[in-house]
Amino acid sequence: MGKSCEIKLLGTAPSHFVNRVQFVLNLKSIEYEFIDENLNCKSELLLTSNPVHKKVPVLIHANKPPILESLIIIEYLDEVYHDIHPILPSDPLERAHNRFWANYIDTKYFPLFEELRRTPGIEGKKEVKKQLDEASELLEEVFVKSSNGKAYFGGDDVGYIDVVLGCFLAWIKFVEKLNKFKIFDEVRTPKLLEWTNRIWSHEALKDAICGSEALTNHYAMLQIKKP
Amino acid sequence: MGKSCEIKLLGTAPSHFVNRVQFVLNLKSIEYEFIDENLNCKSELLLTSNPVHKKVPVLIHANKPPILESLIIIEYLDEVYHDIHPILPSDPLERAHNRFWANYIDTKYFPLFEELRRTPGIEGKKEVKKQLDEASELLEEVFVKSSNGKAYFGGDDVGYIDVVLGCFLAWIKFVEKLNKFKIFDEVRTPKLLEWTNRIWSHEALKDAICGSEALTNHYAMLQIKKP
Repeated sequence: MGKSCEIKLLGTAPSHFVNRVQFVLNLKSIEYEFIDENLNCKSELLLTSNPVHKKVPVLIHANKPPILESLIIIEYLDEVYHDIHPILPSDPLERAHNRFWANYIDTKYFPLFEELRRTPGIEGKKEVKKQLDEASELLEEVFVKSSNGKAYFGGDDVGYIDVVLGCFLAWIKFVEKLNKFKIFDEVRTPKLLEWTNRIWSHEALKDAICGSEALTNHYAMLQIKKP
Repeated sequence: MGKSCEIKLLGTAPSHFVNRVQFVLNLKSIEYEFIDENLNCKSELLLTSNPVHKKVPVLIHANKPPILESLIIIEYLDEVYHDIHPILPSDPLERAHNRFWANYIDTKYFPLFEELRRTPGIEGKKEVKKQLDEASELLEEVFVKSSNGKAYFGGDDVGYIDVVLGCFLAWIKFVEKLNKFKIFDEVRTPKLLEWTNRIWSHEALKDAICGSEALTNHYAMLQIKKP
């Protein structure tokens, strides 16, 4: 270890992108300093660290140039701290498939939740929910293949896709409650439903996700900013 | 080597995403079978290989499950054939920065070219061109830092960012000709301009990019499909 205290993470609690980094830091037992950002009034450190996107998470390791984008940060951590709880498999083909599905989750799955939020009216939301159901069923298939009968996408232990999708669970639960429907259920996604319960109680994740009050406030802010 | 004949690449010549894979295969002197796809009538092999996005490039290595998405494919090739012309640096921090800028090029820089195409009228296009100039100047800065006085983003030899941006040069030249303006010039981006000439004549790229006639046809098809 030794490197652990040298890590600063700029983030905000309701961001599942930030939570991914926290989850991996926890899995690898790396100590870090969390610098809480107010996204309505971004700090000088955030603006100079990420002048292109001006977004969290930002990871600063030993005062070296900042590392940006959640997937890039967790892959960096996995490369630097590869001996402790590796999250990406060592086989290049499996690594490629992990990256593909993480990318699918970020560019296809999550945007459907955003579309659900923006779409007005019950009928409109129903249409988006149908697409969400299809996407969730696809992820169920991915889980069955990846886990190979074991507990996680990563097999016996939490892996890359577990981190990426797992950190979104607080939001999924929030969306379920808000819309009075289920994203994961016994019929369409029985294995993923079991997985959600398993990963939800994982010690390393518990510490990384925020409560529903913070999510409610954050959601309200989103609704005001981008109606 | 030995593995070289076992590679099949499903692609189409005017796609700079496909060209990236060809460029890396050439750099690493890997033989491969190119399967030309007609995107107006996609093959059964493409549809079953990439049922999610139904897009090229698709790489099939030794009849194993297909690998999808250009950046994921070239990273896979770099991991499997790591002894021959590595394209990603070995330092985790530098790797992270390479991934960040590749991601920037794909999600911020290229979409500006798409916006330019879709925006009607000279005044509208001028506005997009202004954003493109700012983005190109940013890439000039990245080049200066990354190349450290050497020939390429990757230093003495072609690296990850060179591949990602380099394969787009045919399109950039096409857009310059079509709109009668320059994307890279002596004033705003002098170093990148030199780099374009250098990489344009690189043996491994020459073979990977198609002529302007094919681009003209492809562009015309895009204009019809998504006006």
